[in-house]
This record gives sequence, C-alpha cells and structure tokens, in this order.
Amino acid sequence: MSANTFGNILTLTSFGESHGPVVGGVIDGLPAGLEVDFSFIKQQLDRRKPQKNEGGTARTEADEVNWLSGIFQGKTTGSPLAFTITNKQHRSSDYDHLKDIYRPSHADFTWERKYGFRDYRGGGRASARETVVRVVAGALVYQLLKLNDISVISAVTQIGGIKAEAELNDISNCKDQLYGFADQSRVKEIEQLMKKLREQGDTAGGVVGCRITGVPAGLGEPVYHKLHADLAAAMMSINSVKGFEYGEGFAAADMFGSEHNDAFISKDTNIITQTNHSGGIQGGISNGEDILFRLAFKPVASVNQTQDTVNSEGKPVKLKIYGRHDVCVVPRALPIVESMATLVIADHLLWSKSSRIS
Amino acid sequence: MSANTFGNILTLTSFGESHGPVVGGVIDGLPAGLEVDFSFIKQQLDRRKPQKNEGGTARTEADEVNWLSGIFQGKTTGSPLAFTITNKQHRSSDYDHLKDIYRPSHADFTWERKYGFRDYRGGGRASARETVVRVVAGALVYQLLKLNDISVISAVTQIGGIKAEAELNDISNCKDQLYGFADQSRVKEIEQLMKKLREQGDTAGGVVGCRITGVPAGLGEPVYHKLHADLAAAMMSINSVKGFEYGEGFAAADMFGSEHNDAFISKDTNIITQTNHSGGIQGGISNGEDILFRLAFKPVASVNQTQDTVNSEGKPVKLKIYGRHDVCVVPRALPIVESMATLVIADHLLWSKSSRIS
Amino acid sequence: MSANTFGNILTLTSFGESHGPVVGGVIDGLPAGLEVDFSFIKQQLDRRKPQKNEGGTARTEADEVNWLSGIFQGKTTGSPLAFTITNKQHRSSDYDHLKDIYRPSHADFTWERKYGFRDYRGGGRASARETVVRVVAGALVYQLLKLNDISVISAVTQIGGIKAEAELNDISNCKDQLYGFADQSRVKEIEQLMKKLREQGDTAGGVVGCRITGVPAGLGEPVYHKLHADLAAAMMSINSVKGFEYGEGFAAADMFGSEHNDAFISKDTNIITQTNHSGGIQGGISNGEDILFRLAFKPVASVNQTQDTVNSEGKPVKLKIYGRHDVCVVPRALPIVESMATLVIADHLLWSKSSRIS
Amino acid sequence: MSANTFGNILTLTSFGESHGPVVGGVIDGLPAGLEVDFSFIKQQLDRRKPQKNEGGTARTEADEVNWLSGIFQGKTTGSPLAFTITNKQHRSSDYDHLKDIYRPSHADFTWERKYGFRDYRGGGRASARETVVRVVAGALVYQLLKLNDISVISAVTQIGGIKAEAELNDISNCKDQLYGFADQSRVKEIEQLMKKLREQGDTAGGVVGCRITGVPAGLGEPVYHKLHADLAAAMMSINSVKGFEYGEGFAAADMFGSEHNDAFISKDTNIITQTNHSGGIQGGISNGEDILFRLAFKPVASVNQTQDTVNSEGKPVKLKIYGRHDVCVVPRALPIVESMATLVIADHLLWSKSSRIS
Repeated sequence: MSANTFGNILTLTSFGESHGPVVGGVIDGLPAGLEVDFSFIKQQLDRRKPQKNEGGTARTEADEVNWLSGIFQGKTTGSPLAFTITNKQHRSSDYDHLKDIYRPSHADFTWERKYGFRDYRGGGRASARETVVRVVAGALVYQLLKLNDISVISAVTQIGGIKAEAELNDISNCKDQLYGFADQSRVKEIEQLMKKLREQGDTAGGVVGCRITGVPAGLGEPVYHKLHADLAAAMMSINSVKGFEYGEGFAAADMFGSEHNDAFISKDTNIITQTNHSGGIQGGISNGEDILFRLAFKPVASVNQTQDTVNSEGKPVKLKIYGRHDVCVVPRALPIVESMATLVIADHLLWSKSSRIS
Repeated sequence: MSANTFGNILTLTSFGESHGPVVGGVIDGLPAGLEVDFSFIKQQLDRRKPQKNEGGTARTEADEVNWLSGIFQGKTTGSPLAFTITNKQHRSSDYDHLKDIYRPSHADFTWERKYGFRDYRGGGRASARETVVRVVAGALVYQLLKLNDISVISAVTQIGGIKAEAELNDISNCKDQLYGFADQSRVKEIEQLMKKLREQGDTAGGVVGCRITGVPAGLGEPVYHKLHADLAAAMMSINSVKGFEYGEGFAAADMFGSEHNDAFISKDTNIITQTNHSGGIQGGISNGEDILFRLAFKPVASVNQTQDTVNSEGKPVKLKIYGRHDVCVVPRALPIVESMATLVIADHLLWSKSSRIS
Repeated sequence: MSANTFGNILTLTSFGESHGPVVGGVIDGLPAGLEVDFSFIKQQLDRRKPQKNEGGTARTEADEVNWLSGIFQGKTTGSPLAFTITNKQHRSSDYDHLKDIYRPSHADFTWERKYGFRDYRGGGRASARETVVRVVAGALVYQLLKLNDISVISAVTQIGGIKAEAELNDISNCKDQLYGFADQSRVKEIEQLMKKLREQGDTAGGVVGCRITGVPAGLGEPVYHKLHADLAAAMMSINSVKGFEYGEGFAAADMFGSEHNDAFISKDTNIITQTNHSGGIQGGISNGEDILFRLAFKPVASVNQTQDTVNSEGKPVKLKIYGRHDVCVVPRALPIVESMATLVIADHLLWSKSSRIS
Repeated sequence: MSANTFGNILTLTSFGESHGPVVGGVIDGLPAGLEVDFSFIKQQLDRRKPQKNEGGTARTEADEVNWLSGIFQGKTTGSPLAFTITNKQHRSSDYDHLKDIYRPSHADFTWERKYGFRDYRGGGRASARETVVRVVAGALVYQLLKLNDISVISAVTQIGGIKAEAELNDISNCKDQLYGFADQSRVKEIEQLMKKLREQGDTAGGVVGCRITGVPAGLGEPVYHKLHADLAAAMMSINSVKGFEYGEGFAAADMFGSEHNDAFISKDTNIITQTNHSGGIQGGISNGEDILFRLAFKPVASVNQTQDTVNSEGKPVKLKIYGRHDVCVVPRALPIVESMATLVIADHLLWSKSSRIS
C-alpha cells in the first residue's frame, strides 16, 4: 500500500525530487529472461525532452539511465530492476525567494498543508521531473508487450483550441512529427499559437489520444480492477491530467443504446465487433478490438506573468516566475502516456495467467 | 491484490451474482466506535431502486440488508463488517435462450473469453446488481465523513442530449427531485425523451456531477494515489462509466494558464483560492476547496430492438431481448457515485493520519 | 492492506464473531473451472470438530456451509466465492458476568485497549471459531493442489510432554487415528493425561508437524515472500500458535555446516538432494523435496480453575470459567494447519506463473 | 504485491545483487518531520560488519550510505527515501568456475529452476549482502520508535551448542560485547569453538533473542496481521533463519494452561500481567508488556571442505569453495533482527492510528 508504488503483479516504485541528486525507480514482478532494449528506452526518453520548437523550453536534460540491479547478460533476472537518472545540478539558492510563497495552481500549498513543511526547490517531488522514471520503466516493460504482439501508440489531438480532425486510426507516423500532432495540416497554426503565448508569458493545455492494438480478449479484473479503471488510475496519476475517457467517452452520454452497441460478427474464424464504440473493453475486460482512450491536460501553471498570491503567513504578494518554461508540455507527455499504458497492460497480461485452471 | 477488493486502508470486498442467492460485501479497516445509521443506508438504497417515472423499470427490489458481523451495540467494533442483500428469485430457465449468444456491448463475450465459461443468468457478476453492495458500504462509511463535517452530494447534469445549465453549486435539493436532475426546468423534456425512447425500445446515457465539501487540505497520496487518481479508479469501476474529469476537466485543454490558475487569497484566518478551476485538488492533494468531478455514462446495452450478433460458434443470429429494462439508469447511479466517493475520501482520511509525526 | 485478508494473488477475506449469526469468508483470485469437492470440505470440517475422546468437549457444531457466490455448475467461475457457516445460537446473557472482567491470557484486555470496547460474548472475533472459515477455504482450494499432484498432510507430534518418536515420513494414516497422533503406541498415555487434566480443570498444548509433497521446484518469491516466510505468517496467524520452524528448525542452531548441508545428487533424470535438512526450501524457493515444518501450540487459556485477575476498573477479582472446554485443541488444529498451508502453496503456484517469460 | 517490498503502511522496497554496483532500498510511508540520525545508522551498519574475532571473516566492507531522496534539512519529507550502498568491486571471472555448479544448501539450484537462469556471481540477489539494506532502513525508522519511547534490543543466546543461561531481561550491554553474547562467562568457549571450526573449514548456527520494550497496548491487526505473525514473517525473511518463536514458544507445548496463563494485576494506575509467558502479545495484539521472541539460524552453507554436488547437467562433481567466510554469522545478524523488528513495530504504530474513531 505504498503511495509511490504502481501496479498489482508488476510494480513500479518511484522516488526522487526534481532538485535532489537523482530520480529513480524500482521495477518488480517482471518475468526473468526478457531482453532489455536500451536504445528504445533512450528513444522514448528523447521524446520526453523539451521540444525543439515554439512550444518547448531551452532547458536541456541529459537523462542518462544508470542501471543498478536486476539485469544480467542483457536480460531481466526476475529480481527487482532499479535505476536512477541524474538531475542537472541547480543552485538551491535560486529558489530561496519561493520558499515562503505559494505559487498559484502549483502543489506548494497542499504539500505544505499535508506534510508540515516542503522541499521548495523547483517543486520537489511534485515536479513533472518524476515522470522520467515512468518513461524508463514503461519503455523497458514494452518488450513484454512486443513479445505478445501488442503495440501502444499515442498522439496529440488537441493543443489549446486547435483540434485534429483525423481519427486515431492512423497515428503511427505522428511520433516523429512536430508536436506529435495527429493532423499535420494544422501544425502551422499551432506554431503561431505557441509563439503568441510565449510572448504573452502564457501556457496552453491539450488532449492526447492513445491506441493499443493486439491486446488479446480476456485482460481486466472485474469488479474493481476493470482494465479501463486501472488505465484511468494510471493516466490520472500523470501531472496536469484533468480527465480520462475511453471508447466514445463523454460523447457516449449523447448517444442512444441502438447507436452505441457494437454488433458482433464473424471474420475468418474470429468473433469481432462491427464498430468499436466500446473502445476495446466490455464489462471491464478487453474484447480483442483496439483499446482507445483520451486524456486532457490543463495548461501548466508556470506562466511568465505577475500573479496575485499569498505567502505562508497569508499576506498578499505579487509573484513573477522567471526562467524559461514550456508553453505547452502536451507533446512531451506522449511517451509518459504510452509508458503508463504499457505498465497497465503488462500487469494485466501477467494477472490473466491466473484466470483459468488451464 | 484482490480484483474484488477496493481501497487501501479502508477496504470493501464485494461478492455475488445477480442471479445467485445474494450479493454482499465485507468492509474492513473502519475504526471502532462509529455509530451505524441504518436509516441512511436504507435511504441511499431507495435512491438506487428503479425510478417511478418514464425512465425507470417496473421491476421491484426489496434490498433488505442482512448484517452478519462487525457491529455490536449499534457501533462498529473494528472487526470486518459483512453483509448480504437477498436477490429476488429468478427462474434460471428464463435465461437458457441466452446461454450461447453474445449480447452486443454486454460482458457475455469477454467473460467467456477470460474464464472459459460464464454464468449466463442475467449478467452474473457483470450485472449492475453488484452496485447495491457499494451503496450499502458507502452509506455506512458516510458516518465517518459526517464526523469530520464532510458531505458528498451528486446530481444528474445530462440525460441524452438534455443538459442542465446550472452550476453544481446548488444541487443540495436535487436528491428528492425527478431524475435527480440539476435543472428542474428541463424535466418535462426529459420525460418526453424517456417516453419516446421507451416506445422505440431504446436507451439513453448521461452525465453525473459530484461535489464534496468540507474536505480538509492534505488528503491524497502522490504520486500514484493522488486523490483524483483514486477517485477516477473508483468511478471508472462503476458499470457503464466511460469518462471521468475533475475541476475544469476536458475544458481545461481549451484554457490558457493565465485563465486556469487559481489565485490564493486570505479570508479570515484561512488561505483559500479565489476561483476553483482546480476542482479542490492541487498536486494530487486536497486544498480545502470543494472537490468537483463529473462522469459520463453510456446508454445501457439492453435495448428492446432486434439486434445482429453471433452465437458461441460464431454463427450470425438475430437477438431480441424481452422484459422491462431502464431507459436510463443514470439517476439510479447517484447513490453509487456518492458511495464510491465516500469510500475514497474515508480511505484517504485514515491514510493521512500518517502524513506527519505530529 | 486488509487485516482480515490473507494471501497475495489468491486471497481469503474472513469475517464473523463466535456469537454473531455466522462466520464466513470470501475467496478471490482462484482460477475459473476448478471443480468443487463438497465432500472433502465436509471431511475437513469434521476433523476440526470437538474430538470424541478425553481431550474433546461435549459441544457440538453442525458447520453446514452456505455457499453464496462464485460457483456455477459445480465449478469456480473466477468470481469471488463467498460462504457462511451458521453459529449455534447462544444467549448473550450467558456472558454478562464476563463483560467487565479480563480473562487471563485471553484477548479481552488487548482488544478493549485497541478498539475502546469489545464484543464480550465468547471471545467475539478473537475466538478460534474463526478458523472454521480457513478450513472451508483451504479444503476448497486443495483441488488446485491435487490438479498439480501436490498433497498436504499433518499430524500431532506432541501433546503435553508426550512426544511421537516417529519421523514425519509416514503420517498418511494419522488422519483417522486418535488425536491424529503420529505415534499410536503412546495414545494410551495421552488418554490418561487428558483424563487427569480434565479432572484438574487444566489444559495442554502440543506440536503439529506438516509435510507437503509434490511441490515443484521454483515456488517462493524472495526476498520478502520467501516460501517459508509466507508459511510462517500463515501458521502464526492461527490461534494459540507460539512457534514455527521448518526443516531442522531450532535444531539447526546446534548443527555444523558440514552436517546440515544437503548434497545434490542425480536420480533418473532429476536432480534431488541426498538429505533434506533444508526442509524442501532453499533461498526461499522450493527445491522439489518434501516441505516439512512444525508449529507449537500453547495450552488454551480456558482452564476450569479459580484464577486471579482484574476487572475493567483494575480491581482484583476471582474468576471461575464454567462450561466444557477442550483439554487440548491441538488435534482439531490439523485441518486448519493443512488449510493455511494449502492457501500459501496455491497462492505461490499462481504467483510463479510470472517467474519467466516462457 | 511486490516480492521485494515489505510492510503495510510503512514499506521497504529492496533491490540489488551482491556483485552488482550497489544494493539499495526505498522507504515509503514514513511520516514527514522525522529527524534522521545518521550516526545511529552508521553504528548499526558497523555491528553488521564482519566481526573482528575468531568467528568473523577478514573481508572488509565500507558500507557508506548514499542518500538519494526524501530528506530535506535533515528531516523526512513524507516522500520516499531512497538510498544505495556501493558494493566492493569483484572480478566476475572469480565466479566463472561456479556458474554451472549447484553449491549444496545455497540458492543456486532453486533460483535457476525458478527463473531459468541466474546471476552466478556470489549468490546474486540471494546473498545476505541484501540485509545491509534492511539495517539502513530499520536504523532510520528507529527514530519513530524512540519518539514513542519504544526500544528494540537483541542478543545472541546460542552459538553452536553453547547456550547463554541468562534470561533476556538484561541484555542491554550485550551490544558492545564479544559475539553480542548474552552470557559473557562463556565467550572463551565460543572462541575455542570458532577456532576449531575455522581450522576444520566448518560453520556454526545459533539463536538470537530480541526484546522490545515500551510498546503500548493495542498494536497488531487480527486475524491475519497479528503482531507476532508480522514479526514472524519479518524474521523468517532473513537469510538462514529456520525458526521463530515468541513468549514461551515451543516450550509452551510442554506447559499446562494453569502454568502458562498470565494473571492480570493492578500496579499504580495500570493493568499489567504478573508473569509474561505470553511474550507481550495476546490475541495478536500487544498488551503493554515486553515483547520477547527468538529465532534460530542454521550454520551457513559455505564450508571450506570438499563437497559432493552436481553440475547443471546433473553430473556429479567435487566442489571446494575457497576464500574466507564467516564461521558464524549470527552475531552480525543482531542489527538485522533489530531492524526488521523496528519496521514491523513502526508499521503497526501507524496502522493503529485507524483503530478507533477518537
């Protein structure tokens, strides 16, 4: 029952603050014999780095992974896999002016109320720096999905008010494209919006869509670990996420049963559904169709504008946060979303081994 | 790591099928000395029963709770509280015609794929009958929230395409009103829609909003048991729920940081926020403001129309489900939503006792 | 993290007090498709009933199991299996004289200190009545072991000071013999001791040995769920157990490494050990040899003698407990020990499915 | 449900192999605001190092702790505390001759059977090197016990066949004495035994006793997390431990109820017991008396003698292990035992905060 441990059979325990020496994690429950694909891990880490475009920040992060245990001769051993990623060194004194001030819509106030005091340097444990740990873990575990012919792919479908028209069917190429956006015809608009917001010292939110293909029917553990319930918990644990939906999601509330139902049909020797309003999960268990979900990110709270707030004594103060921050972090969230989805699917793959006596 | 156990320190273990003798639950981890309010439990159970309006079904359920353990002299003892609710007797033979057929968008197909066979009588464990267990548990545990001056209240904010304009601020009266709808001026439209759908043998989905007041700052356990992540997992585990959002939710994706940030101000001796776009949770921890969330329900799959599907051999068949079903179950979901929210908040209240050494 | 839930993948949640209407349990995580052997469950329950000999009590318990869920067509469905066993009706007033008195070496004092008040009727939740739940669960789950050619058998190896000389190798017949004692040549002595103790109003403890055969190499999850660590936790949770040892146990402390080491040898195509000082577990993982462990029971605290104690105000009082109690409960513990061992082995069988990628 | 995570509310996740770069751990669930006593941690680590006497090895271990997270301004922050301890560098080639051979009574065979292959360098994850992690965690958490006036102290009460006569009442000075032995009058005999065994290339086991004082009545969570059940699981997870008993332990099996019962008496304004056969725990819950338990260690398997074994193909081979090993590791186990006991008591201190509503 650890607050920093995720998963059921396959677990990730995460640790570290943005301004401590490292962040890191411990993966446990992964079967022995899995090949580690270090280049894929690096690739996913690179996708999480600040974007080299109008929406990104100029900060650079090396993100070298230091493996501490659980790998022998390039393969997992069945023992816990621990790793760290070194943080860039910061001067703690850079944050002294923030130590008694609660930044609006950051976690300063709530962490201090909960724990009595807080590590005020750059958000500490509340910083999104922690998500680098999830990317490493998810990218490593992804090999288990590949062995089972499962793939996870995500794309940005909305930034600010700019929405991709395209369906999520063909997002396999978004990976290498600007903003990871599902509709490249609108990238120029996005660039303009990002530029404008940067000039105004403002930030934008967005929406990410994710598609998981190749999931066999039978994953998910009703009634409290339905596959989509575990996916929701995973996604909502990511910094800045405000909403989760799968299949038709909130749009399903507008539909009638006769529209929403997915008719079963036979194709070759398989039973499939003619439509996929359900998003690949029925009754909390995967049905073999693609799993589709979306999640909403709020705009990050670090705006470059003078804001009203109070200090720890409750006195009103004016706050201006300096430094270069992302205008929009949503594109960087793609490998995080994919990693958390990977952890959930892999966990349920292992759990499903106990579903039947044979 | 039980699929049918919910919660961390405070747990609910649920059991039973819709057509077995009973459904029931075991609540564990509740402190000793809590008075049991049997009348409130009955009241919440009554709200879950089929509505006496155009949207309801003619079926009746007695829902008497049979308490088996954990209560002595009207108070919780610290030992597990077990209870059952007797199911109405059904003839199993009524379901024989469905035993080899997969009803569209029901859980028949996925449960059979997972477990190798299934209890085909009325949905078995996949039936929403199970939610009566959650209502009993949540209503019992609600006394712990009351002791801490916390209240949980929900309302229907959308049925089919009909939306309540009202904010969720004033929904305290919705409880006793038709459809539990947050905007009584539109109830007549709803009645008409329900009537039409019933005639067409169709069903409608909807949206529920929930407001939790009085939650002290400091509840929530980052990074994987953020308060909203546990709320999301709770809500997504409810039958037919397709989406969850808190605070501004998906609308936050359209906002800029300067709009979305909640400025801190002092009021009396407290620090509060001027707006509540955050929905009462920042960095995964409650900030003392009202907690606000919404969830979307798909239309139920049991339409009274002839549908295309296949049997267990993959052969196409025509299916017509008889019997009276709800046109829209969303109003009945209110006590379920409140109960799951109650379990999450109570669990985190207990968990937060370990946040500080003093 | 429920205090009344046992196990990792396969869990038993137990509930009920000795003087409530029922005791019962919920088994979750058992694979679907397992045949339920109701007659074996009855057989194990019968072994737990008061013995018809000098060591037993005259009380009778019917112990009919009432199955509530999770079984369809005689097989497990993958859903939680809930069951209750009705308690014999007692008049609560029979216990009124004990409600303010702390019986020596019972749980009255500690439960009251922990929970603030207690159900004083016959021990409440602290009563060994709860173990009937474990017997039902273990006997049901035993079918999973049988499918895997694993057997669990136990015998009493000591009552009072009377010890069985025999090794635990050949205890398969003890089941049906007096006191389940591993050395029938000494049963007459036991009868005499029991008779004498009954006349004196006294009680005796004892030792139980257990042998598990057919366990494949590879069960156990280092470093905190070593197979013997989970067995120890299981056994120590049984009422009155004061010690646990496996393999040579405490005697190993007297041995030298050269004596204690088990040499590996080949036999047919298998690698086995020449001796089994290790008790079938090395490094926390089963090695394919028989698993052997022993546990010590204290004499039950309900002596029929006048005892010194205090009441809830701390005033000295003389206490005389009436009624017929067991002189020695150890023979009745055999099915409980076997059941808890079964739950541990079955849990680890399921867990081990994730040990390797193939 | 991680195999390498220990505890309920307060958890320790451990990682690392003896011949990897580090071993380490993550402590989660510890309240914020606890002062870290680095010198006590060092002191406990020093006690775990090879003894400078006849029973020790000549190997040296630096055991510097590298703190990675969760501490700010010398205090715990409520976030996970991660740490590593660097391993001495070994040449992997030193172990090449062992990679296909199963050392008797080591974990080589079982780990290979479980995981399909193994890190054969010095025991890998199965090595007692892992226990250094437990010592760091236990020593850190010990400050929480000190705040609650609880102390944990242990001593060696048996080495080989040499037993301490003394009761465990007065072992507070054993800490700094040779072999941590509870009866210094017999240390010369021990020295002689150790010397003889070293010459013979043999090893000895032993027994450790532990006393926990100041535990308030009310800790322990029946029925499956009885305080002694969690202590047993903790102790049995330590390398080489073969048995656990508390209170009278196995000796209780020889006693009659009239001897074993602990009469309650009043002293000042407290209710205490006249004797403490129960070992400070009744019905699974602490009663305020000292908690007393003992555990048995087998002799370590690394004897310096030629042994019969087989290789991975099942062919008989002669094995001679070189290098200097401990003749008896039991004295080094004292800080490990104290640390695991500390983790259990601290975990239950936090858990007990939910026992009552007030």
